[in-house]
Amino acid sequence: VEAALQELIDRQKIVHLLHEYCRGLDLMDLAVVEAVFSPDCVVDYGAKPGMRTESAEALIEGLRALMWRWVRTAHHVSNEQIWFESADAARAVSYVDAWHEFPDGTTTTLLGQYHDRLARTADGWRITHRRLLMAGSEGGWDVPNHRLERQAPPP
Amino acid sequence: VEAALQELIDRQKIVHLLHEYCRGLDLMDLAVVEAVFSPDCVVDYGAKPGMRTESAEALIEGLRALMWRWVRTAHHVSNEQIWFESADAARAVSYVDAWHEFPDGTTTTLLGQYHDRLARTADGWRITHRRLLMAGSEGGWDVPNHRLERQAPPP
Amino acid sequence: VEAALQELIDRQKIVHLLHEYCRGLDLMDLAVVEAVFSPDCVVDYGAKPGMRTESAEALIEGLRALMWRWVRTAHHVSNEQIWFESADAARAVSYVDAWHEFPDGTTTTLLGQYHDRLARTADGWRITHRRLLMAGSEGGWDVPNHRLERQAPPP
Repeated sequence: VEAALQELIDRQKIVHLLHEYCRGLDLMDLAVVEAVFSPDCVVDYGAKPGMRTESAEALIEGLRALMWRWVRTAHHVSNEQIWFESADAARAVSYVDAWHEFPDGTTTTLLGQYHDRLARTADGWRITHRRLLMAGSEGGWDVPNHRLERQAPPP
Repeated sequence: VEAALQELIDRQKIVHLLHEYCRGLDLMDLAVVEAVFSPDCVVDYGAKPGMRTESAEALIEGLRALMWRWVRTAHHVSNEQIWFESADAARAVSYVDAWHEFPDGTTTTLLGQYHDRLARTADGWRITHRRLLMAGSEGGWDVPNHRLERQAPPP
Repeated sequence: VEAALQELIDRQKIVHLLHEYCRGLDLMDLAVVEAVFSPDCVVDYGAKPGMRTESAEALIEGLRALMWRWVRTAHHVSNEQIWFESADAARAVSYVDAWHEFPDGTTTTLLGQYHDRLARTADGWRITHRRLLMAGSEGGWDVPNHRLERQAPPP
């Protein structure tokens, strides 16, 4: 396969991975979520203890503890962008609109960006580093995520 | 065309089809919507009589009856995933954020997933089976869609 | 590179451009935004003076004047569709869910479509014409954008 075709195939596989994360998480099928990450992945969702994990196992344990707080979620991902650093390493930015429903029926939505590093492993592309940056929220989002910062306004 | 390239082309055409559905429906250009489906498509939008149709013609008739209830809609589709079952058959999952405006200016939004089967026909890729699964909603959504179910919580 | 592969590469580059616009705008990194457009681009965001510009320079000046009204924005783009008119010219439609936060913490969201024309230039693909069409909004959106019109209802 020539290089240009291989790059398109890699892009497709990486975008598919970003979507697998959402599909698995919204089903609470955490085996699907775990398969998206390398075993030694570093994931940083925010400033509170437990929100930064240094293995897929710790990440899944954290999600299992956190996510049952809501009865349903829907992680809509868009604006997927990928930059290759080599044939086997890439960075990705994607936007997420993450809707969450509490047991009492109230809802809250996080708007943010995933900033990922990915590597081609023996098992295919995997996320090795993920950082979530919150642009904003609707409806009383209370998780202390890192903030996405605009450039400074003109003086 | 070699197989890997053909698969990327097919993926692009299928994603385009998922987007044509939204574009046609939001314009109420139902000829565009109809061209997305095979003549014998089975579409299941929910549990009420009329929400399951067994032909493109019946689907379009149902949409024509239903959609003028709102004065405007916007179907934002994301998280498109495709799995090929053969060179000529595929399954797809995509997320939808479907905003609807009533004549009185109030709005309601459905969050869900389309679960599709597609086939390559003489006219190109067409959806042959579609099932909508609702994750949740905002603003008083009152349509009895099927529900997307999470896996059972830990005991 | 054969034609079918080149078209897929072009599609990827154009979608990347649509996403660069959002990423740059949400960071208020207007150099990123400017690089998305041809120098002589015609951009029409609405019916008020200043909302239609005839150069990238005027567009950026307009965005710099407008966007600091909000403290944060998040432009989620989806439903990207591209039609080629020649090897070097294309039309694109994409959907946008554009969330905006005011300094007092209130938020408003525009739902709409970008209708673009693009050309392959010496610097790669660039948007040469952009028109924004508003499907609707949430939360007191007050910008006089052009409206997206459904087809006429049945008599």
